[in-house]
Amino acid sequence: MQDVVLTGDRPTGHLHIGHYVGSLRNRVAIQDKYDQTYVMIADLQALSDNGDNPELIRNNLLEVAYDYYAAGIDPSKNTIFVQSMIPELTEFLNFYLNYVTLARLKRNPTVKAEMKQKNFKEDVPAGFLVYPVSQAADITAFNATLVPVGEDQLPMIEQTNEIVRYVHNHFSEDVLVECKAVLSEVGRLPGIDGNAKMSKSLGNCLYLSDEADVIKQKVMSMFTDPNHIHVEDPGTVEGNTVFTYLDAFDPDKEKLAELKAQYRHGGLGDVKLKLRLNEILQAELAPMRERRKEISAHPDEVLRMLKEHSLRARKVAAENLVKLKAAIGINY
Amino acid sequence: MQDVVLTGDRPTGHLHIGHYVGSLRNRVAIQDKYDQTYVMIADLQALSDNGDNPELIRNNLLEVAYDYYAAGIDPSKNTIFVQSMIPELTEFLNFYLNYVTLARLKRNPTVKAEMKQKNFKEDVPAGFLVYPVSQAADITAFNATLVPVGEDQLPMIEQTNEIVRYVHNHFSEDVLVECKAVLSEVGRLPGIDGNAKMSKSLGNCLYLSDEADVIKQKVMSMFTDPNHIHVEDPGTVEGNTVFTYLDAFDPDKEKLAELKAQYRHGGLGDVKLKLRLNEILQAELAPMRERRKEISAHPDEVLRMLKEHSLRARKVAAENLVKLKAAIGINY
Repeated sequence: MQDVVLTGDRPTGHLHIGHYVGSLRNRVAIQDKYDQTYVMIADLQALSDNGDNPELIRNNLLEVAYDYYAAGIDPSKNTIFVQSMIPELTEFLNFYLNYVTLARLKRNPTVKAEMKQKNFKEDVPAGFLVYPVSQAADITAFNATLVPVGEDQLPMIEQTNEIVRYVHNHFSEDVLVECKAVLSEVGRLPGIDGNAKMSKSLGNCLYLSDEADVIKQKVMSMFTDPNHIHVEDPGTVEGNTVFTYLDAFDPDKEKLAELKAQYRHGGLGDVKLKLRLNEILQAELAPMRERRKEISAHPDEVLRMLKEHSLRARKVAAENLVKLKAAIGINY
Repeated sequence: MQDVVLTGDRPTGHLHIGHYVGSLRNRVAIQDKYDQTYVMIADLQALSDNGDNPELIRNNLLEVAYDYYAAGIDPSKNTIFVQSMIPELTEFLNFYLNYVTLARLKRNPTVKAEMKQKNFKEDVPAGFLVYPVSQAADITAFNATLVPVGEDQLPMIEQTNEIVRYVHNHFSEDVLVECKAVLSEVGRLPGIDGNAKMSKSLGNCLYLSDEADVIKQKVMSMFTDPNHIHVEDPGTVEGNTVFTYLDAFDPDKEKLAELKAQYRHGGLGDVKLKLRLNEILQAELAPMRERRKEISAHPDEVLRMLKEHSLRARKVAAENLVKLKAAIGINY
């Protein structure tokens, strides 16, 4: 059986270089390797904690598509679809909700962590609580076998496979397939303020769409080593955002090792280091920004592409739904 | 605006005279009064606590439809549809899940009572926990304004209207309508064993499909007043199942009042009373059983009717979904 890859993003804002390093870059790298690569703009999932603010999602739908083009995700090599354009996904979800208990949902480490972060307790919207089941629906509707995720998303893959095994054990082994997580080699990129999480609400993101002067200004304001005050002071590399970014982007690893040694020893100033990072990021981001500008001049064309791709994805999901319903026997 | 009526049943078994007295009889009485009366066979809802036993639902789908014919629900006057044949209902559900918190679901008195009864705690399937939201989807998808229910289902109507008001307050008043409960005049009919609830699992039901000899046998074994041992003993009418059934079915209220007085005074035996109830029930149920036999000889025809009606219902739900999505702005 050929591998099927599914990835996706919530359209709640422009994508940033954290998305790029952690996921988009990797998707570009593998888009030639697999015949079937699905990229989902998860608008319904984004609604699960933005129920009262759907404009946010509506306004960012095309922005995310532009970011895909910008990052090099090629519409001729990927099926880029919109979750809400595939009603079958909610039917998968509806069946699966019967195979997952409340206790299991509350025990999901990712949900637990995100509820804590969003300060949700029992007031969590039901839609948010069940979103791992929704993800299982998305993954299995396309028989995805490979799901590139961050470490923090591993519980989602486990939940998905539990549901698949439930269906195999109770109804039929001829529908649904288990999936594997594909972990990104690079960990999560911190925000420019050094916060472990880059997030719009923290205002610490560097976006693929940022203009050159914004990039420079953000890089120059980056968190480094607060104890590294004078150029000649020894500095710390670990947890130093500039080095973390250089690790992710600097193509010259040898030079980077030298710089780290020099920084630790003393004699390398933050400004010099930031200027180097700025140069590297500008080189990396300039062509993306250009592609983004070109494509975002044609929103109708992009929307047409999304609709066409969604139609194609829908056919696959619909076929698999027919099989699932037959296996369960809810097909009259 | 014209009233729209929605009712429904879970296809987990044959319908019994408790359904008839509490609901079906009333639906027949109003089917000429309203232009739009929807009757839903709630197969997906039935799955929410029978996830591992879909055969039960599959096997009872047509049985419930036969019971409808038997009870006099006229397919030419009602839209009788199957829940799973209207995928739009799960889309409504999916949106609504974002407007209802976990705390709210757990606070729902009907859900609480049913969870207790089914001995569910945190191991409750997510699908069961959210079924009030699913009901809200079913009701609002058809802009139903009148929902005949038992007293115990009032919290469902309240939950539905809360969701409607959420949508009105946040998005638009031009979609969805609030609904009203229409309470049945007759309370719940007890089981033949006197248990307050008639249920298949308790084995205390009298079915619309029961044969004459089964009806008689069930009536003759009915719970009466355990202290009414000799014919001449004074007996208790309250909580006496035979009298409860006579209250529901005996057309001669004057005669019934006399019988009650005589029973209280002493001198009226249970057997005589049961023979009277048997006669009344036989007269009521015989034509139903006949209609049921006739129609159940044509399962293909009934299934075709359900599919046609579901298609008709689907058009309405789809139109209303388009409106909801436009109001939310998740329509690109």
